[in-house]
Formats: sequence, structure tokens, C-alpha cells
Amino acid sequence: MSNYSYQDLYQFSHSVFIKMGCSEADATQACETLLSADLRGIDSHGVARLTGYVRLWEKGRINASPNIKVTYETPSTAVVDGDAGLGLVVAPFAMRVAMEKAKNVGTGWVSVKNSNHYGIAGFHSLLAAQNDMIGISMTNASPLVSPTFSKERLLGTNPIAIAIPAGNEPPFVGDFATTTAANGKLEILQRKGEPVPQGWVQDKDGIDTTNAFGVKEGGALRPLGGSRLHGSHKGYIMGSVVDIFSAVLSGANYGPWAPPFVSFMDPVSDPVGEGLGHFFGAMRVDAFRPATEFKEHMDNWIQRFRSSTPVDSEQPVLIPGDPEREMEKIRMEQGIPLLQPVVDDLKEVGKKFGIDF
Amino acid sequence: MSNYSYQDLYQFSHSVFIKMGCSEADATQACETLLSADLRGIDSHGVARLTGYVRLWEKGRINASPNIKVTYETPSTAVVDGDAGLGLVVAPFAMRVAMEKAKNVGTGWVSVKNSNHYGIAGFHSLLAAQNDMIGISMTNASPLVSPTFSKERLLGTNPIAIAIPAGNEPPFVGDFATTTAANGKLEILQRKGEPVPQGWVQDKDGIDTTNAFGVKEGGALRPLGGSRLHGSHKGYIMGSVVDIFSAVLSGANYGPWAPPFVSFMDPVSDPVGEGLGHFFGAMRVDAFRPATEFKEHMDNWIQRFRSSTPVDSEQPVLIPGDPEREMEKIRMEQGIPLLQPVVDDLKEVGKKFGIDF
Repeated sequence: MSNYSYQDLYQFSHSVFIKMGCSEADATQACETLLSADLRGIDSHGVARLTGYVRLWEKGRINASPNIKVTYETPSTAVVDGDAGLGLVVAPFAMRVAMEKAKNVGTGWVSVKNSNHYGIAGFHSLLAAQNDMIGISMTNASPLVSPTFSKERLLGTNPIAIAIPAGNEPPFVGDFATTTAANGKLEILQRKGEPVPQGWVQDKDGIDTTNAFGVKEGGALRPLGGSRLHGSHKGYIMGSVVDIFSAVLSGANYGPWAPPFVSFMDPVSDPVGEGLGHFFGAMRVDAFRPATEFKEHMDNWIQRFRSSTPVDSEQPVLIPGDPEREMEKIRMEQGIPLLQPVVDDLKEVGKKFGIDF
Repeated sequence: MSNYSYQDLYQFSHSVFIKMGCSEADATQACETLLSADLRGIDSHGVARLTGYVRLWEKGRINASPNIKVTYETPSTAVVDGDAGLGLVVAPFAMRVAMEKAKNVGTGWVSVKNSNHYGIAGFHSLLAAQNDMIGISMTNASPLVSPTFSKERLLGTNPIAIAIPAGNEPPFVGDFATTTAANGKLEILQRKGEPVPQGWVQDKDGIDTTNAFGVKEGGALRPLGGSRLHGSHKGYIMGSVVDIFSAVLSGANYGPWAPPFVSFMDPVSDPVGEGLGHFFGAMRVDAFRPATEFKEHMDNWIQRFRSSTPVDSEQPVLIPGDPEREMEKIRMEQGIPLLQPVVDDLKEVGKKFGIDF
């Protein structure tokens, strides 16, 4: 495990995106989106994925100079065609369209087709929260999750992020996969050779398993809830809603047709739409009540919840977004730790493009 | 257990609402909303609650002839003041405001203050789906749920419903409490004298318990996920978002300030807003792509998921809304079964107003 400064990782990633053929502006946006994951402690979605994006580009599945555009709209809605661009760039474009519509009519809602993986959901929702708007961000993803009662993989981990601005308090930022546990947590237990808790994974026959390799061996992740008795049908509903909002509304591939992120798996031969889909929402808080009033009450909400009596005096009650914000502060100062396999991967990408890592 | 026809329960409830002082139109709407719960099999939210509404009205906490109105708006948003009316009536009013805005600018979003319990969330979302719109409905509720790591009750079971229209297929209707299990399911186990599964309830010290009376004895319901290891922070996020959208956006009471449904508990003496809050959204599907195209793909989505390989051949994979629709068909034909205590309660209400039950 070695530490790298944000600036160094930024410069390296920027050079890689430029070598791929991204414009200066797109390379900058892609770095900001990608590295926000490393800063916020969601290591699975950060610079560790850079080589994945490169490999998809090599396969011709990512277009480094896309013509991203609005193809359908009303005063409060739009569909954006990502032109097979980096989701890291397509998503902020689409969120800004939503924010522009919110400026005009109170809220904006944008469904995106023909995109690729977009980094962490939370980054995009925060763009709105920085502008006195509630930001909503979701995406569908490679199928790894079985609906309740099914043994097929039909949904991705389909995350949802919701960022809500406050006044003196930092914003509320909820950002979560609609599964019991995200794939990144499985990988940690695989590396340690430890079992996973019940309710995370089912085997290829659809039976609950504690085998950390259960998904790799033909099983699936379980929707949030973990079992019917514990409400997995609710996680299944949420994952489905993300899929439908992101892909059925926009004209992207949904459900089992969603293209895989890994380059060694080809997309299905009978697509039902174009690329991957996302969905964004922006709601001006002053479209409901004066912004100062909203923020005062939001501060009060946050303070009341944060100061609530904890079960364990050493583990205070958290506001969604607290752990990631704390991590961001630490990593900006102390650097970002990368595992050796990630470092090796980045060195290889560097060699390919003649850039030192 | 005795069976009552929908028509008989409708007529009785209608007479009760009229005696309370509701207008003919409001009494009709209140019955439709209330009894949709009985038809759809969500018995805890149907006619069994009629006496609860009456008692709140007797205490002066429900206004039978409210002046429900829009108090703040933009082209795509509004705040509705329910004037302490029946949520059963205030909510459809607000959903129709959202739908009207969607007609004009693609989507409509309405936050509601000064309301009361609104029946089942799904009913309101279906109003939109019947008009080629995606309908979203949520409400905050009496505090019974502890955030992850907390031993205080700060949130209600805060349900979310999302109804999505299809073409030849019936609509997708997800309707769920953001807790592991709804209170109604606890009550069933209490009656049977059985323990509850782990992850449903914590005791007054915040420790997971299988005691079905844990909530009544000072404990709390757990957010969906059940424990931190199983993602309860995600259920906590969702419950919080429902609370904030319903009450902080509108100016209703949020978190622990939300007024209790039971008439024997008084609302807090230091309210932070007015009454209970709801939130509604309506999105025209043709604000994103032509409606016929959307519906064809939605049919395809539903058919693919419904026909997916089940774990157990006797339990097919369900589409959200399937069980409730099936129940509605059965109960319309065979009547609605009521438990004896509910029948006794309704007889007493009848006696109070001079109406036969």
C-alpha cells in the first residue's frame, strides 16, 4: 500500500485521458469525477478503474470525443445521448442540463442513453447541492443482482445518490448501491479469504451462501434486504426503478441487456437500446419555500439527528455523507493509498501511453 | 373473521365521513383512498383505521371541511397546505396538482404540509400511472424508527410508492415502508405470540431483539437492511429522504416532531412545522420518449423479469404490484375479511353516529 497525492493522480489520469483523445475540458471533467471516488473513500470506483476505461476504449466501446447532446425535451425534462462517451463526462453534462431546467421551471429531470460507467453516483448529485438544489443521481449497471425469488442476474448494483443542501451544516449526501453490499466489499473479503455475511450473496441455484466467490461462481448479489423475510423485495423494487428511470425512459439497455463494464465480456448481441443509462434530477429548494427557511430547517434536522442518543457511546449517529467528507479531508492532506495491484496496473497503462507513473 | 363486500364497507365509511362533516366529494374521495388498502390486502391501512381518523377528528386534530390550497409554486413545483384535512383527501388533491403541472411542463412535484395520514402510498402513485405518467408518492409518519447507531425513534416507517405505466401489461407498482418490516406485520406476530425475525426490531437499549413487543416496550423498528452489516444505513437514508422531501421542503413537522397517528398521544408541544407532510411526483412518460415506445419497452421489461428462472419452481418471480392486483380481484369478488376487533370497533363508530354496521 503506497500513498499518492491527489495532484499526482490527477496529472497522471489527465495525461491518460488526453492520450485517449479526450479534449482538454473532457479530460479535466473525467479526472474530477473519477478521483472524487478516491477522495471520498470509495476506492473501487476511482483511479483503480482507469485501466478498465482504457480497455473499453481500446475495444471501441468508449468514444473519447463524443458529441453529447439533448435529443428530446420538455421544459422540465430531457433525454441526453452520450454518444458512447465516458460516463465520467456524459453524467455531469446531463446533470447540468437538469440544473439549467431547474433554474427555469423549478426542477429538471434528465434520462441518459448511450453512456458508460459514470464513477460514483454521489459526485453528480453534489453538483446540484452546491447550487442550492437537491440533486438526484442514479445509473444502471452490468447485471450481477437477482430479483427476489429469481436465480438469474437481471439487475446491476444500480446505485442512487441524493444530495440535499443545508445552511451552516454540510450537505446531506446519501449514496448507496441498492444491494445489501456493493461488489467492492465482496472483493475485500475475497482478498482476506473470509466468508461474507448471510444475505449478501446467493449461489448459482439461488441459495443464500457465505462464499465470498459466490458471484464469480455463477451466483448473484442480493437486493438490499437480503431475503424476502428481511425485505429484499424492497431492494428489488429500488434497483428496478433505477433501471427503468435510467434506461427504459431514455432508450438505453435495461436489465440483463445492460452492457458489462469489463472489456473481456462482450455486450449482448440483441441490445434493446443504446449503451448504459443514467437518470438525474435537480430541484431548486426555493421552488418549494424560501431557501433560507429551507436551510435553517435542514440545519435543525441534521443537528437533531447527529446529536441523537447512540446505542454505543463510541459510535455517534452519522448523517449520510459524514464519513466520505471526513475521508476527503484526510486524503487531500495525507494522500490516497493504492494497493500494489492497482499501482502495477497504472504503471502498465503509463507504459502503453509513454507516461511515467 | 367475517367477509364484507366492498360496497357495504364503502357505504358505511361514506356515511361516517359525511357525519364528520365532510363534503360529498371529500367523503367519496376518502372512501376510495381508504378502501383501496383493504382491496389491495394492506389491511392495517384500510377500514381498520376508520376509528382512528374519527378519534383524531373528535380531538380537533382533523378538519373535516378543510380549505386545501396551493400556497407556493413554480411551473413544475408546488407546496400544498392541507389545512389539517384528512390525508385521504389532501393527498389526491396534491397528486392532481402534480399531474396538472406535468401536463404543462413534463413533470410536477408537490410537497404537502398540514396534513394527516394518507392511507396507502400506492393509491396516489397509481392516479398518475392511469394517465401515462410515472407516479411517486411518499409520506412521513409518527416516529417509530431509529437511525442506524441510534436508540431514539426519529423517523416514521416513511413509505415510498412508485407506479410506472406499461402497455399491455399492468403497471409496475412498488409500495414499501423504508423499514425491514412494516408495523402491521409486527402486529400479526404479536397476536400469534410468535417472535419476530432478527433485524426487524431493537429494544430500548438499541439491541436487536426478537421480541414482537419490542417497539411497544420502548424500542424501535429498524430501517430496511436491519443492521449496519446488512445495509441499514441505506434504509436510514431512504427514510430520511422521505422525511425531508415531505416535511422540510413543505414546512410540515419532520423527524421526531411528526405528529402521532394515535389520538391518545398528543403532538409535541414545540412543533417545527404544520401537521404531517407528503411528497408527490408525476412525470409524463412522453416527456422523455414517445409513449408507445416507452410502453413497448416497459412491457418487454416486465415480461423478461416475470419469466426469469425462479429459485423454487412453485414461487415465480413477481413484478411489484402483482400480489396486490391479484388480491384486489379476489376481494372485489369474495369480499373483504375483517377481524372481530375491527368489526367491534366499526360497530361502535356506527353507534356513535347512528349508522348501522
